[in-house]
Amino acid sequence: MPSETHRRQRRIEIAEATWRVIERAGPTGASMREIAREAGYTTGVLSHHFRDKHELVTFAFELAIERSTARAIAASQDAGLVDGLAALLPLDQERRRLATLWMVTLAASRGETAQAAQMQRHYRQAQQALLAVLHQAVGAGSEQESAELVEELLVVVDGITVNALTDPDSYPPDRQVALLQRAARRRGLEPDQGTDRTPLRPGTSRSR
Amino acid sequence: MPSETHRRQRRIEIAEATWRVIERAGPTGASMREIAREAGYTTGVLSHHFRDKHELVTFAFELAIERSTARAIAASQDAGLVDGLAALLPLDQERRRLATLWMVTLAASRGETAQAAQMQRHYRQAQQALLAVLHQAVGAGSEQESAELVEELLVVVDGITVNALTDPDSYPPDRQVALLQRAARRRGLEPDQGTDRTPLRPGTSRSR
Repeated sequence: MPSETHRRQRRIEIAEATWRVIERAGPTGASMREIAREAGYTTGVLSHHFRDKHELVTFAFELAIERSTARAIAASQDAGLVDGLAALLPLDQERRRLATLWMVTLAASRGETAQAAQMQRHYRQAQQALLAVLHQAVGAGSEQESAELVEELLVVVDGITVNALTDPDSYPPDRQVALLQRAARRRGLEPDQGTDRTPLRPGTSRSR
Repeated sequence: MPSETHRRQRRIEIAEATWRVIERAGPTGASMREIAREAGYTTGVLSHHFRDKHELVTFAFELAIERSTARAIAASQDAGLVDGLAALLPLDQERRRLATLWMVTLAASRGETAQAAQMQRHYRQAQQALLAVLHQAVGAGSEQESAELVEELLVVVDGITVNALTDPDSYPPDRQVALLQRAARRRGLEPDQGTDRTPLRPGTSRSR
């Protein structure tokens, strides 16, 4: 169905414009008019594709989660656990935008219950898919150890992300990666130095 | 100056009403009218104490940061590092409210640059004060080791907080504390089991 494909493509295009507007103006400043201007459409076209701002922001959030989960899964399969996790950090403009969407949308959706619940559900599903892949990437230890390891490192990623988004000057990419690698080492994983391209070898915990 | 004290007291009272409104309605839903109603004043009284919503939200944010920093400093001096950090987690209604303020305000203030910059400055000053106290509470290792330890554990606290605020059902207080304690243990700190009242002994890292 080419028209269905076209419709999906148009929704994605509008969602990506929404990311850019939310990134610079925050969720409050992201009016339908501003998003339409950013996307290069009239607000009429937006209304044709999304019932209201809630539906648009929810779709944009879900797309951001899918996009960043897919990045993390690919990086984890290519290069190992720590690279998979690093794919979630706001290390470049694209990842920064996806992480911003994650944070501001979750924060702003508190109190708007139906929307928040839907986004939560979607987020948890994406996390489950990611956990399964990261779990495989650990490749050592018991199932429970591996689950705990991934859980702890995801919490570290979220903590680094919040700090990096709200105080970018203090958290340049190399500090973010160093913090993640240090956390991985503390847990007995030995990522290779240098890039975030290198596979991860399970090893013994050693202090820096 | 009793009138100055009274004025300060009134501002605090209005700020606390602002916390409650932001907690249930999000920063977008927190209108001056709604805050006035919550505080039991007219919007005229609010305008007498705060130039506009920006000034009120900034003051409410700074008060939340001061309050939670003071809690963490007291707990850290009373009972050690891990309890100091646990004081920052959204483990009860009061801490949940303070943490919510932290997250939603930082997230929503992106893009509103002057306000964001002021809140950032204030937040960093509070963090510096907290870091100095937590640093003392480590009580072992070199200065650099201690600073790295505190930095890593604060990132863990932020990561747990974000997850607990956005998905409270999956992060009940005992899971939050367990995650923090596990992170502390991985770093060679051995918090006592059970409550978050027990002092922390530096010890060797051991896996659970």
